[in-house]
Amino acid sequence: MKNSQSKPKILLTNDDGINAPGLKALYDALKDLGECTVVAPLNECSATGHAITIHTPIRVQKLNHNFHGIGWALTGTPCDCVKYAIKEVLQGLPDLLVSGINQGANTAINTIYSGTVAGAAEGAILNIPSFAISLWSYDYQDFSVSAEFAWIIAKKIMSSGLPEYTFLNINVPPVPKDQIAGVRITKQGKTRYEEMFERRLDPANNVYFWLKGERVLLEYSDDSDEIAVEKNYISITPLQCDLTNYQAMDILRSWNFSIK
Amino acid sequence: MKNSQSKPKILLTNDDGINAPGLKALYDALKDLGECTVVAPLNECSATGHAITIHTPIRVQKLNHNFHGIGWALTGTPCDCVKYAIKEVLQGLPDLLVSGINQGANTAINTIYSGTVAGAAEGAILNIPSFAISLWSYDYQDFSVSAEFAWIIAKKIMSSGLPEYTFLNINVPPVPKDQIAGVRITKQGKTRYEEMFERRLDPANNVYFWLKGERVLLEYSDDSDEIAVEKNYISITPLQCDLTNYQAMDILRSWNFSIK
Repeated sequence: MKNSQSKPKILLTNDDGINAPGLKALYDALKDLGECTVVAPLNECSATGHAITIHTPIRVQKLNHNFHGIGWALTGTPCDCVKYAIKEVLQGLPDLLVSGINQGANTAINTIYSGTVAGAAEGAILNIPSFAISLWSYDYQDFSVSAEFAWIIAKKIMSSGLPEYTFLNINVPPVPKDQIAGVRITKQGKTRYEEMFERRLDPANNVYFWLKGERVLLEYSDDSDEIAVEKNYISITPLQCDLTNYQAMDILRSWNFSIK
Repeated sequence: MKNSQSKPKILLTNDDGINAPGLKALYDALKDLGECTVVAPLNECSATGHAITIHTPIRVQKLNHNFHGIGWALTGTPCDCVKYAIKEVLQGLPDLLVSGINQGANTAINTIYSGTVAGAAEGAILNIPSFAISLWSYDYQDFSVSAEFAWIIAKKIMSSGLPEYTFLNINVPPVPKDQIAGVRITKQGKTRYEEMFERRLDPANNVYFWLKGERVLLEYSDDSDEIAVEKNYISITPLQCDLTNYQAMDILRSWNFSIK
C-alpha cells in the first residue's frame, strides 16, 4: 500500500471563494495526483490583486462538508490563504500550488487586478511551482476542459519543474473540447479598461457608485494571451513578480539629480 | 496674468489615506508645479496591492477642509481613486500622477503588495507619467527630503517624460538631507516575507489571527532598491506592468501538450 506521506502536496486556492464550482472542479481533477489541501477565501475576492489583510484580523473556518473535510475558509484574500496554508495548515511548502479555476478572463491587464493570478504569484515568490487557471468567460459553466488541462499541466510541472520564481497564467477558451484550437505560449497582452462610475441613490437619497469597465485592446499580437484565447487556443503565459523595466534604467541613469 | 487653465494637471493619491501627513507634504511640495487634485482613500489601504472595488459600492466625500478644498475621499483603494479621478473629477488624463508620500518601505517584494505603487501603476496602464514615492521607515516622521525629491523628479518628468507605459518607484532613506548618499537607479530587489499568524482570542473566546511578517533578503546586489536605500541612497526603480517572463516562453514551447 502506498504511504500517503510520500504523495506530493498540492495546495489549492482561488479568488471566487471556497464554495465556487471552479475550485471543486479543480479539486476533483487533481486529487489523484497528490494530497490536495484547499485554503480559499470565505467570500468572493475577485479583483483584489495582490492585497493582503493587515488592518483587520483574519478569521478561519474549517469547512468539513467541503472537499472531503480538507477545506479552510479565510476572511481574507487569496494571498492571505497561501500564507496561512503554508504556515498553519501544511507547515511547510507544497510541491505544487494551483489557483482557480477562475470564472472569467485573466488575460492582459486583468493579470494585474486578478486575485487568482496573485494567489499563484504568492507561490512563485516562495519559488513554489505554481499556476493560475481561468475559464475565459463569466457565463460559460462547463469547467471540464479547464479541469482536464489543469491535470495535464500539473503532471507536467511535477515532472519537469518550472524556471526559478516563474509561474504560469493559463486561460482556457469557453468552448467544448473539440473546438479547442490547441495550446499557445503567450505574453501578457496590452489592454486597458474604459471605466464608468455608475451613479445611484440609496433609499436615504445618498449617492453611491458602482465601478464598471470594458476592456480595450491596445495591440493585436498573435502571441498575446488575449488574442490566443479569442482564437480558441488555451493560453499559457509564464509570469514573474519582477516589475523592473530594465531597458529604462539606462535612460534614467542619464538624468542628473542633485539632491545634495 | 497666467491663465490657470494652462497649468499642468497633477493628480495625487496614496494608500495611507486622505488624512495622512505624507500626502499633505506631497501636496505642499508640488502645488507650485501645477494644479494639484487630491483623490485618495478615506481609510488606510496599505498592502491592498492592485485591488479594485467591484463587489461593494463606492462612496465619495469631498473634504473641503483638506488640501484647500480639492480633496476627494473614496471608500476604495488607490486604484479606484485614480480611476474615479480621471472619469469623474478631472474628466480626462492628468499630465502627471504621483502616489505617496508613503510612510514605509516600498522596495523589493513590497512593490507587489503596495497600494502606493499600485496607484502609480494604474497611471502607467493609461500611459500617464507617474511615480510612487515612499519614505523608507514606519517611524521616521520627517517628510522634508522626500517632498523635496518629489518636486525634483516631478519637474524632471514634466520636462523629459518617461518611457512608454513605465512608471517610477522611489524610496527615500529615513535620514536628514546631509546624510543622503546620492541617487541610485535600481532594479526591484529580491525578498520574501517570513510570515507569522498571531493567534488571539476575542472576548467571546473565538480565535482570530493577525498576519505579521519579516522581510528576508534573497540577494545582496548593489543595484537593488533595498540595498541602495539601506546605504542611504534615494532609490529610483523604473517599473512596468508586464509580468511576462519572456525567457521562459521558449522553455514552455518545448513542452508538448496534447489537449486534442
